[in-house]
Amino acid sequence: MGNTFGHLFRITTFGESHGGGVGVVIDGCPPQLEISEAEIQIDLDRRKPGQSKITTPRKESDTCQIISGVFEGKTLGTPIAILVTNKDARSQDYDEMAYKYRPSHADATYDAKYGIRNWQGGGRASARETIGRVAAGAVAKKILNSVAGVEIVAYVKRIKDLEASVDSNSVTIQQVESNIVRCPNPESADQMIELIERAKRDQDSLGGVVECVARHVPKGLGEPVFDKLEAELAKAIMSLPATKGFEIGSGFAGTTMTGSEHNDQYYLDENGETRTVTNRSGGIQGGISNGENIILRAAFKPTATIGKQQRTVTNSGDETVLAAKGRHDPCVLPRAVPMVEAMVALVLCDHFLRHQAQCKSLK
Amino acid sequence: MGNTFGHLFRITTFGESHGGGVGVVIDGCPPQLEISEAEIQIDLDRRKPGQSKITTPRKESDTCQIISGVFEGKTLGTPIAILVTNKDARSQDYDEMAYKYRPSHADATYDAKYGIRNWQGGGRASARETIGRVAAGAVAKKILNSVAGVEIVAYVKRIKDLEASVDSNSVTIQQVESNIVRCPNPESADQMIELIERAKRDQDSLGGVVECVARHVPKGLGEPVFDKLEAELAKAIMSLPATKGFEIGSGFAGTTMTGSEHNDQYYLDENGETRTVTNRSGGIQGGISNGENIILRAAFKPTATIGKQQRTVTNSGDETVLAAKGRHDPCVLPRAVPMVEAMVALVLCDHFLRHQAQCKSLK
Amino acid sequence: MGNTFGHLFRITTFGESHGGGVGVVIDGCPPQLEISEAEIQIDLDRRKPGQSKITTPRKESDTCQIISGVFEGKTLGTPIAILVTNKDARSQDYDEMAYKYRPSHADATYDAKYGIRNWQGGGRASARETIGRVAAGAVAKKILNSVAGVEIVAYVKRIKDLEASVDSNSVTIQQVESNIVRCPNPESADQMIELIERAKRDQDSLGGVVECVARHVPKGLGEPVFDKLEAELAKAIMSLPATKGFEIGSGFAGTTMTGSEHNDQYYLDENGETRTVTNRSGGIQGGISNGENIILRAAFKPTATIGKQQRTVTNSGDETVLAAKGRHDPCVLPRAVPMVEAMVALVLCDHFLRHQAQCKSLK
Amino acid sequence: MGNTFGHLFRITTFGESHGGGVGVVIDGCPPQLEISEAEIQIDLDRRKPGQSKITTPRKESDTCQIISGVFEGKTLGTPIAILVTNKDARSQDYDEMAYKYRPSHADATYDAKYGIRNWQGGGRASARETIGRVAAGAVAKKILNSVAGVEIVAYVKRIKDLEASVDSNSVTIQQVESNIVRCPNPESADQMIELIERAKRDQDSLGGVVECVARHVPKGLGEPVFDKLEAELAKAIMSLPATKGFEIGSGFAGTTMTGSEHNDQYYLDENGETRTVTNRSGGIQGGISNGENIILRAAFKPTATIGKQQRTVTNSGDETVLAAKGRHDPCVLPRAVPMVEAMVALVLCDHFLRHQAQCKSLK
Repeated sequence: MGNTFGHLFRITTFGESHGGGVGVVIDGCPPQLEISEAEIQIDLDRRKPGQSKITTPRKESDTCQIISGVFEGKTLGTPIAILVTNKDARSQDYDEMAYKYRPSHADATYDAKYGIRNWQGGGRASARETIGRVAAGAVAKKILNSVAGVEIVAYVKRIKDLEASVDSNSVTIQQVESNIVRCPNPESADQMIELIERAKRDQDSLGGVVECVARHVPKGLGEPVFDKLEAELAKAIMSLPATKGFEIGSGFAGTTMTGSEHNDQYYLDENGETRTVTNRSGGIQGGISNGENIILRAAFKPTATIGKQQRTVTNSGDETVLAAKGRHDPCVLPRAVPMVEAMVALVLCDHFLRHQAQCKSLK
Repeated sequence: MGNTFGHLFRITTFGESHGGGVGVVIDGCPPQLEISEAEIQIDLDRRKPGQSKITTPRKESDTCQIISGVFEGKTLGTPIAILVTNKDARSQDYDEMAYKYRPSHADATYDAKYGIRNWQGGGRASARETIGRVAAGAVAKKILNSVAGVEIVAYVKRIKDLEASVDSNSVTIQQVESNIVRCPNPESADQMIELIERAKRDQDSLGGVVECVARHVPKGLGEPVFDKLEAELAKAIMSLPATKGFEIGSGFAGTTMTGSEHNDQYYLDENGETRTVTNRSGGIQGGISNGENIILRAAFKPTATIGKQQRTVTNSGDETVLAAKGRHDPCVLPRAVPMVEAMVALVLCDHFLRHQAQCKSLK
Repeated sequence: MGNTFGHLFRITTFGESHGGGVGVVIDGCPPQLEISEAEIQIDLDRRKPGQSKITTPRKESDTCQIISGVFEGKTLGTPIAILVTNKDARSQDYDEMAYKYRPSHADATYDAKYGIRNWQGGGRASARETIGRVAAGAVAKKILNSVAGVEIVAYVKRIKDLEASVDSNSVTIQQVESNIVRCPNPESADQMIELIERAKRDQDSLGGVVECVARHVPKGLGEPVFDKLEAELAKAIMSLPATKGFEIGSGFAGTTMTGSEHNDQYYLDENGETRTVTNRSGGIQGGISNGENIILRAAFKPTATIGKQQRTVTNSGDETVLAAKGRHDPCVLPRAVPMVEAMVALVLCDHFLRHQAQCKSLK
Repeated sequence: MGNTFGHLFRITTFGESHGGGVGVVIDGCPPQLEISEAEIQIDLDRRKPGQSKITTPRKESDTCQIISGVFEGKTLGTPIAILVTNKDARSQDYDEMAYKYRPSHADATYDAKYGIRNWQGGGRASARETIGRVAAGAVAKKILNSVAGVEIVAYVKRIKDLEASVDSNSVTIQQVESNIVRCPNPESADQMIELIERAKRDQDSLGGVVECVARHVPKGLGEPVFDKLEAELAKAIMSLPATKGFEIGSGFAGTTMTGSEHNDQYYLDENGETRTVTNRSGGIQGGISNGENIILRAAFKPTATIGKQQRTVTNSGDETVLAAKGRHDPCVLPRAVPMVEAMVALVLCDHFLRHQAQCKSLK
C-alpha cells in the first residue's frame, strides 16, 4: 500500500534499486497534451546519480521509456506508463548489508514490517524510487505551465549552517542549474560545494534545506478541510526520503511574531486585484491558494549511509559495527531539488483538476 | 472535497461555525469496542471555547450525541455519526465580516474559490470544524490504547519565544492538564499565561509550538512510499488551522549535524530488542515506525483575527480598515493540544489497521 | 468501511433503522447550487414507508434537515450533511429477531462478520439506510438537470411474471407517479397492485424488475477501464438491498443474438450528429456514454421478511422456526423506484465532474 | 482515471493493444508469498490469443516479466509490476479503422471523450488490457487459496441459446480446461465449438454466459453499504469488455418466485455450523458472504468486430460502410473464462484483507 499519490492526477510508482527497473503509471492525465521522452529526460538527468563530483558515483543513465498512454506525441487520456530499467549489476558492496542494519536507514524497519527485504542497495527505500515521481512531475509541470503559466523553482537554500540569500520572487531555473550544488547564489554555491567535498573526504555526510517557490498559481486551489493545499504539500514533501521538516511561508519563525506583525494585510493592486502586502502565508490561506507565490521549505537530514564506522546490530540479533562500503551521496540536496519540484507540481496539478471539477463545472 | 481523512479508519467531518451543527462520521471502526459519549466528551471539553480566561469567551457546551454505530455501549462496525449542535445564535459581531476580508484568514480565498461563503464566524474554516476530529480521535486513542497500550501526549512547548523544557519520555497527560495553557512545565506555564494575557489586553495574538509524543507504538506502522508515517502525520498536522510548519524527530535542527552525529546507532536492550541509542529519527525510519517514541512538533501562527486595526479590502473591491469585533482566542495553542493528539491518533489507528491487513493476514 | 460512494461527488451514509437517525454527508457538491429541504423531501416522500396500502405500514415522516453546507438557499461547496431522525420507538415486534435469524436476511451474516448487531429492525441492513442515498440523489439530479437537462426516470417494469409494456423514450415521471405501484402502464399497474395485495394477504412477498432510463446524458461520461459507466452503474444498483441482477441495454437477452444482429449501426442525424440506429448498447460503448438513452434494469428479489412460518436457527445454535411479526413491505419495488433513480443520478453526476476535470481542463 | 481497482489489494493496469506493452502494478500484496512468473503465465496462457481454432489467430506469446516486488521468489510487500510487451507489429489491417468507427465498439466514444485515440487495434479498449487483470488475479487466487483454500472456477455456461448443464458444487478446473470452449459439459462443449465455427465462417460472432463459482469463501467478507460483496463483484464483472449483465445467485429468475419459495431457510449441519438449505442468495446475504458457494453469471454480447459489412460513419462525419478486416474472436467467451476468475479473485482477496483489518485487529 501507499504507492499511489493524487486524487485526479494520480501516480503509482514501482521498483527497487536493484532488479528489473523502476517506473511510474500516471492515471488521469488530460488528453492531447504534447509530451516526449526527451522532455521528461531533462528532469531525470537533474536527478540521476553520477552527475557531478559531489553526488554518488553510481553510473546509471536513467533513460526513460514511455510504454503506453502517448500516441504520435500526444497523451491519450489513458495511463502513461514510464519505465527506467536498472543497468547496474548486483554489487558486492551490499553483501554486508544483507545482515547488518545501517543506522537511521530503512533496513531494520522493513524487516520488522515485512519480515523480508531486498537488501541490495536500498531496495524500495532507495532514492531510485523517486525516478517515477520526477518523470510524472515533468508531465505535471507541463500541464500547469500550459494552463496558467505556473513556474516551479526549487533550490538549495542551506547546507549545514551555510545559508544562501536568494530572492524567491526572481530566482530562475537557469540560476539554479548554473552550478552542481543547485544553489542560485554563486558565492554560497562555491562554499557549499567545498563543504560537501570535505564531508565526502571525511566519510561523513551533510544535510540542509531546499526551498521551493511556485509562481503564477491560480487563486482557489486547495480543498478544505483535510486536503488543504499546505497539508497536501507537506505530505508530498515529507514522503521524500530523508526529510525531517516542512514549512510553508513564515514557518517556525512565524510563531515568534504577534498577529499584528504576522498578518498579511490586503491592498488592491493597479489592476484592482486583491493582493497581500507581505506573504507570510506563503501563498495559501485557509488551505486555498490566494494568488501570491507559494513558498515552502524542506529539511533534509544528512545521508544515513556513511563510510565512518558506526555501532549497529545484525538481523540475527548480534551487536556489531558497520563502515558502509558502496557508493552513496555525501549530501542528497543537489539531487533533491528536482524531486521537490516534482512533488510540488504533482500536488498543484491534482488540485488544479479538482478545482476545475468542483468549481468550474456548473458554469 | 477534502473532508475525508484516513484509508481504513476513515473520518468525514461536516459543519460550519454557525448553522445546524458540526460533526463527524467514522467509517471502519472495529466492532465491539466499548465507547460512550462521556468518554468522547472528555477530549471535546479540552477543546471547547470558554474553558479559561485565555481562550475565546464564546460559550458552547459542545455536548456530543452519538447518532449511529453504537449499540448498548459497543461499536457495531457500522458508521459512527457524532453530532454537536451549534447553540450560539447568529451574532451581530460578524456583520462587518460579511464584506470585509480578515487579513490572513480564509475569507478572501473561500470567496475566490467558491464564489460564496458563510461569513458568520469562520464558516467551514472555523476551528469549530475540529470538533469532529477530536471526537473521532478519542475513539482512535481508545483503540490504540487497547491493542498496544499506545499513549499519545501533546503539550505546549513554546509560546512566542518562551520555550519550556519538557521530558517527552515521561510527560503525563495529568501534567499537561494541570494548567490552563497546557504546558507541563509549571514555571513556563505561568509565564506563558502571563504572555497570552498581555497579548489579549493589547488586542493582539500569539503563536507557538505544540510538541507531541506517542509512546509504545508498535514497530512496522507506516507505508512506503507516499504514505510514509511521517508524511501522513505531516498532512494530518498541517491540515489543522493555523499551522505553518511540521517537524519529526530532529527536524530542521537535525540538518545542521553531520551524518555521523545524526545517525541513531543500534544496540540490543536487555530483552534482545533492537533499539536506538539516540532518537533523532523521531521513532520513524524509512516511513515505518521503529518502536521508539514518535516525536513531532507543529508550528502554529498567531491567531489571524485580532482587535487591532488592520488594512484590508472588501468583497466589492474597495480598500478599507478592520478592527475585528467578536470573540476570538488570543492564542490557539492551549486548545490546539487535543487537536494535535487527535490527528496523531487518527493516523496511527489507520496505519495500525493497514498494517494488520497487509502484514498479518497470511499468518 | 464501505459507506462512501463516488470519487468527486462523494456521499457517506450513516444510521441504523432504530437509534438516533439516518443521514448522509455529501462532499464535493459544486457551490452556488440552489437547493432546499423541500426539494429533497419530494424524493424522500416517494421512498418513505406507509405511503400506500401496498407498502409497510410503519409510519415515519422522514422529514429531512440540512445541517450544513447550504447558506441562504445555496450550496457552499462544503459538506452537505442531511439528517432524518428516527421517530419510531423500539418495537416489541423485533424481540424475537434478537436471537432468531431471518432467512435470506442480513441477520446471520452481520453476526458472523461483526460479532454484534443492532437487531432492532434491520439495523444498518435496513432499507432505511437508503434515505441518505435518495436525499443525495435529489441533489445530483438537480445538478445533472441544470448542466445538461438530464432526465432520469425509473419505473416498475415487472412484478413476478407480470411485465408491463413501457416506452422508455417517452415515459414521464408523472406517468410513473400516477399510481401507487409506480408502473407507468395503467393497466399493468392495476394488475400489479392486485398481485401485491394478494401476496400481502398470504403473508408472502413478491419481487420484480425496475427499469431506468437516463435521457440527454452528454457524450463522453465514464472512465475506462475499471470505472466504465456500466460497471459503476452495476455497483450502484447492486448495492441496493434485495438486488440480484443488473442489465445494461440488451442485457442477458442480447447474448442470444449474433453480432450482426446486435451491433448498433451508426448514421448521421439531421444535425450531423453521430447516432445509432438501434440502442442495444444501452447508451454506453467501451464504458463511455454515447449520447443515446442509458437504459438499465435491476432485479429485486421478493422481500425476505415474511409472515409465513420458516425454518431457521438461533444465534446460540439451535434450530427453530420463525413467523416474522412487525411491519414489512410485501414488495419493495414501488419504494425502490426512487432509490434506483438516486443511484443512477449519483453515478452520472460523479462522472460528469470527473469528465470535466480530465477532459475539459486544458481547454 | 479509472485504471485502478481495489482498496487494499489494489491493481493499476496500463497499456494499449499496440505500442510498448501492457501490464499491471499490484499494490498491497502481503509479503512473503511465494510467486513466480511461471505460475502467473498459466492463467495468461488461458487468456492469450491464438490458443485454438475458435479464437483470434493473432499470435502473441504474452510472456510476462516481473519487474519489481518479488525477491528470491517471494513477494516483498512492495508494488509488483508485471509487464507483457506487445510483439505484433502495427498492422495494415487497422488502417481503415483510423477513420471509420466500428459499430458497438469504443472507437466513437473514445473520440468523443478524449478527442484522440490510438486506433491501432482497440487501443486501450482492447481486451489486451485484461492481461494485467489476469496476471494480478493469479496472485490473488494464490493468496485466497493459501489462507482459506478458496477455489474459483469459471466456465462457459451458455453460447447463444445453447445452455450447458453444469453442477457448480463439483465442477473442476480440469473439466473446464478439457476442451477449447471451456465448457465443462463435454457434449455441450462439442456443440458450442460447432456453433462458433459456423459463426466464424459466416463472418459473424456470438455471445453467451459465463458462470463462476467460488467455494470455501470464509464467512464475513463484504462491506455494507456500498461495497456489498455482490456490488463489488458486479462492478468487477461489468468492467470486463463486452459484458451486458450480471447475476448473483437466483438472479433475474429469482424475481418470479415468492418470498416463501425464494428464501434460503437455515439449518445446522453436522458440525453445528449455520447453513442454508438452498442457495438462492448465491453465498451472499446483506452484502456479506455466508459461507455457502458464491455463484454469479456474466452476460457477454457477441463480439462487436465482425467481417460482415455494416453501416457506419467516419470521424469526419460521413456515412459509409465497414467490413472489418483484421483478426478477431468470433466469440469472446472461451478467453473470458480466466478474466472472470481473475476479477472474482481480486474482489475476494481485497475483501479478505479488508475484513481482517476491521474485524480481526482488536482480537
